[in-house]
Amino acid sequence: METNLEPQSGYGSDSYTESAKEKIRKVCECPQADVWFLTGGTQTNQNVIDAMLQPYEGVVAASTGHVSVHEAGAIEFTGHKVLTIPQHEGKIYAEELESYLRGFWEDTDHEHMVFPGMVYISHPTEYGTLYTRSELENISAICEAYDIPLYLDGARLGYGLMSDNTDVTLGVISSCCDVFYIGGTKVGALCGEAVVFTKDNTPKHFLTHIKQHGALLAKGRLLGIQFDTLFTDDLYFLLGRHAIDMSELMKNGLKERGVPFYIDSPTNQQFLLLTNEQAERLKRQVLFSTWERPDEMHTVIRLATSWATTEENVQKLLQVFDEIM
Amino acid sequence: METNLEPQSGYGSDSYTESAKEKIRKVCECPQADVWFLTGGTQTNQNVIDAMLQPYEGVVAASTGHVSVHEAGAIEFTGHKVLTIPQHEGKIYAEELESYLRGFWEDTDHEHMVFPGMVYISHPTEYGTLYTRSELENISAICEAYDIPLYLDGARLGYGLMSDNTDVTLGVISSCCDVFYIGGTKVGALCGEAVVFTKDNTPKHFLTHIKQHGALLAKGRLLGIQFDTLFTDDLYFLLGRHAIDMSELMKNGLKERGVPFYIDSPTNQQFLLLTNEQAERLKRQVLFSTWERPDEMHTVIRLATSWATTEENVQKLLQVFDEIM
Amino acid sequence: METNLEPQSGYGSDSYTESAKEKIRKVCECPQADVWFLTGGTQTNQNVIDAMLQPYEGVVAASTGHVSVHEAGAIEFTGHKVLTIPQHEGKIYAEELESYLRGFWEDTDHEHMVFPGMVYISHPTEYGTLYTRSELENISAICEAYDIPLYLDGARLGYGLMSDNTDVTLGVISSCCDVFYIGGTKVGALCGEAVVFTKDNTPKHFLTHIKQHGALLAKGRLLGIQFDTLFTDDLYFLLGRHAIDMSELMKNGLKERGVPFYIDSPTNQQFLLLTNEQAERLKRQVLFSTWERPDEMHTVIRLATSWATTEENVQKLLQVFDEIM
Amino acid sequence: METNLEPQSGYGSDSYTESAKEKIRKVCECPQADVWFLTGGTQTNQNVIDAMLQPYEGVVAASTGHVSVHEAGAIEFTGHKVLTIPQHEGKIYAEELESYLRGFWEDTDHEHMVFPGMVYISHPTEYGTLYTRSELENISAICEAYDIPLYLDGARLGYGLMSDNTDVTLGVISSCCDVFYIGGTKVGALCGEAVVFTKDNTPKHFLTHIKQHGALLAKGRLLGIQFDTLFTDDLYFLLGRHAIDMSELMKNGLKERGVPFYIDSPTNQQFLLLTNEQAERLKRQVLFSTWERPDEMHTVIRLATSWATTEENVQKLLQVFDEIM
Repeated sequence: METNLEPQSGYGSDSYTESAKEKIRKVCECPQADVWFLTGGTQTNQNVIDAMLQPYEGVVAASTGHVSVHEAGAIEFTGHKVLTIPQHEGKIYAEELESYLRGFWEDTDHEHMVFPGMVYISHPTEYGTLYTRSELENISAICEAYDIPLYLDGARLGYGLMSDNTDVTLGVISSCCDVFYIGGTKVGALCGEAVVFTKDNTPKHFLTHIKQHGALLAKGRLLGIQFDTLFTDDLYFLLGRHAIDMSELMKNGLKERGVPFYIDSPTNQQFLLLTNEQAERLKRQVLFSTWERPDEMHTVIRLATSWATTEENVQKLLQVFDEIM
Repeated sequence: METNLEPQSGYGSDSYTESAKEKIRKVCECPQADVWFLTGGTQTNQNVIDAMLQPYEGVVAASTGHVSVHEAGAIEFTGHKVLTIPQHEGKIYAEELESYLRGFWEDTDHEHMVFPGMVYISHPTEYGTLYTRSELENISAICEAYDIPLYLDGARLGYGLMSDNTDVTLGVISSCCDVFYIGGTKVGALCGEAVVFTKDNTPKHFLTHIKQHGALLAKGRLLGIQFDTLFTDDLYFLLGRHAIDMSELMKNGLKERGVPFYIDSPTNQQFLLLTNEQAERLKRQVLFSTWERPDEMHTVIRLATSWATTEENVQKLLQVFDEIM
Repeated sequence: METNLEPQSGYGSDSYTESAKEKIRKVCECPQADVWFLTGGTQTNQNVIDAMLQPYEGVVAASTGHVSVHEAGAIEFTGHKVLTIPQHEGKIYAEELESYLRGFWEDTDHEHMVFPGMVYISHPTEYGTLYTRSELENISAICEAYDIPLYLDGARLGYGLMSDNTDVTLGVISSCCDVFYIGGTKVGALCGEAVVFTKDNTPKHFLTHIKQHGALLAKGRLLGIQFDTLFTDDLYFLLGRHAIDMSELMKNGLKERGVPFYIDSPTNQQFLLLTNEQAERLKRQVLFSTWERPDEMHTVIRLATSWATTEENVQKLLQVFDEIM
Repeated sequence: METNLEPQSGYGSDSYTESAKEKIRKVCECPQADVWFLTGGTQTNQNVIDAMLQPYEGVVAASTGHVSVHEAGAIEFTGHKVLTIPQHEGKIYAEELESYLRGFWEDTDHEHMVFPGMVYISHPTEYGTLYTRSELENISAICEAYDIPLYLDGARLGYGLMSDNTDVTLGVISSCCDVFYIGGTKVGALCGEAVVFTKDNTPKHFLTHIKQHGALLAKGRLLGIQFDTLFTDDLYFLLGRHAIDMSELMKNGLKERGVPFYIDSPTNQQFLLLTNEQAERLKRQVLFSTWERPDEMHTVIRLATSWATTEENVQKLLQVFDEIM
């Protein structure tokens, strides 16, 4: 609001956006990084993937990857297939990736198939899990061996970076990935994701590409100002840390109450294994996402804390569990 | 900012968005209108046109239409052709539209051509001109006769509605058009355009369509709150009126100084016919858009006022003209 | 060649094409069928699927379905996702299909996902297996319950219809499927596939759609004449039967020699489970497709007979197996 | 028919196709040419243009170009805009092309527009007219200066090469164009067009691209055999010459009868300017294409001769004109 009357040039060429880019380059320890701002996660995946792939290529992803399941076909809309490989609590394994790529190139029929042109991972994954630094490095090495870029979807990156159980930093990500994005929306921004190209590899005429995809924001400063703020005085990390603290509080409280967990997640998303009856009782008091049904009797539900979750929120939730378990 | 900590459901299902929709239905005198919010103009054109057309159809537009020239091919990106007909100071003529449509259907070869499936007009046009109520009604009648929807791009609608020389109101537009949008970005919003379907004709699963196009905003309230504010206490109209007042001031000042106009525009965009030398001298002091070169010696430039233009801005500009003419 | 100088109208409106359509309607016991001719299998899948789906829909297929794996992304090229469900020797199970569709509609998040808009099956499948009449009817009933069309890819249909082990006829297929195609290329045609819409459900302006997809043949008679010939004096069935006879001869010969089969296929494609050494030795004398590697030591290879396979061909192949086993 | 039982590998890797390619390289005086075969003209334009353009680029064409008007939006279907410039009896002028390209790059707003990435011309044009060698060279030089490929649509090329009034040979075309195609369908082939890349510039993985577009013919020999035949003993040129002879006969006969011509076409397409009454009378006896209506009283009709037109056909037509004029 304060800058609304200040004349600034449009489409991301304003001074706030420039400042945000500089701060991101610094925090990523990647001085050559080329930073762009888009409005939302699906839009970012669609723009980055379509711009990096050749028309005859697809993107390799875990079968549970957001691009594969929850983006209404935004990748296919641009003409590209999502090539799925097995997931393990949301993650892909380097050796399975390697085996998939090797199999493709060995297949004498591969000219009749979709070429794997990029690898997509999310960190944290859709199951709240995290790659280790060494896992990332292994995946990165395979991508390099097959000469295809590695792309990391960081919609919830702040919650991953601030987990207690991680050796992955923005610097590690910048050196392992060809491109990734730092999610703003999920850590408190009104909207906005920061795309980082790390290897002088920005697609040619990327601005025109963004415009063609209907994703170019006229008043780019709206994104620039927010990221400039998020990367001032560590705000981005403090917001992330807060969600982790609240998640740990919730997790411990639930464990004390004997609630079984479906997955051991070190971030802000927790997956509980409830009986259908428990889930039914919970639904009357709490809004949650039903994740999957592992069998006829049980339901896996997801609970997520965020930058905005208060201790009071968590305590209230635990009281509800006292009643329903 | 005030509502940021307030829990609200996402993707446009929050209470602010609901309130904005209700206000727009009222101001459009169209109780059955279905209102949606998107972030920018090109995105809106892309989403509406692609959703309303059959895959084998294209959209008819003036050769100078924004969708035809200045959207980096966003319409073609979705597989649809922009079918151009002649423009007259940015407008299309009802009789030429009729002749085009008739010609298509009479052509024995038309099954090998792109079917005209929609008509696109902008109001104000890219040349700042306005349709009259009767012109709109004529175009609307032709669309009805050929059973194709009429779509009005209102990126600058606020500046058209508040012009001194118009009998077109939101009510008139709602009754003439099958769908149109009320631009927010160009009248002071951070971002946001309001799409209005007027005839119970929202495309099926439009939310999924928007998501697929990468255009679904997670925190939809960002758009809802802005439009709720714009349509409270006539703010939208006051902002529009202000730009018109400033435009008139500028226009009169320029006319007094003998500056020739290329087009007689009743809105906030003015097109001046300068000699190349004048344009060159102006460039040193003023940022403007070069519009076209009618001949080797002359340059048409565009000057636009807005909700944010001050009287002081205009006076300063006129002083510059005192020097360069 | 005989008709080349005979003037006929183009794009499939000639008298040979008309005659072929009539014969196909008869042999399918489907007087209301609307028949179209296209040149190849991938082209047919692309045109039919894209024309039958809404833009926000995808096609459900077995994970091994031809559209999913071996068409270079031709379906995704048109903007649609292939939604895969488990395969069982190339087939899908009605109950798993039902569970998938139910799961989609029960998912509270499904508006953010690709809508299942069609079911694709191949018959024979990519593994040479066949659906039974009752399996087809069950799948058909589920499609009807969920109000989505069932599409059968009959690239190798002739070889399925003439198998000894089938109760599926063209009449059964016509009554179970909303649309299917009868493959010409794989039973001896130079090119050509016959698409059959069985329920007055031809997509609107399908000719224009085909033209837009670059698939409209100017001299449509090239396809019409071939199908007219194939459905004269049971030629289509005789060619299919011949391949089955040759396949049985080959199968029995291989079994006598103790060659293990990977799948029990009743049609013209046979899948052998060889050791890697055997496969290596075979490769020196026979051209075959390597299908998959079930483990480190073994290779599954595919051998296919056709309308053109001779008894001598089979005997020679068996002699090679005498040497390599 | 003779080769149908001969085993040959598929997808254009057979020996007939190889022989046809070699003959085309020779007749084009272009030893490095890479030749591909596709089935039809629209399919060829779609595949070549989509493969040569970057996603943010469009193709420049005359407003009357086949790709612009008569291909049901096949180019836009692949996401690319057809950027039209003025036509002059179907041709584009080098200076207008240059002015268009210069204007694009000088426009400060061009990053919000579709980049011109290729130039499309047809020869003969849709009006039967021909470029001269020097016109082709000028257009070619401009394309080179702007670093974009020149593509020539030769659907009717045989009729252009054999015109009495041309200095354009296949060698000239090969040296001026980056890619062009030699039409087979319109000179007597059942189907088939030969695409020639002249400058070691075949798009990467073009076979996969063709497959993805549904345009890969399984039995590629069907195309190879026809072109091998067409380029044996000058058959292609003799067929072309025959149509020109018949066209001249028709033209002279019509001129003797005082029939006015709309355009002076040196090839097999002739455009007559009839009164509406004459056109009406003609329609009762002759099947023709109505081309355009220059005014309320007149109709331009097209008459085309071909490889199959006989002298008797022409004489009969002239007799009809004796009656109707």
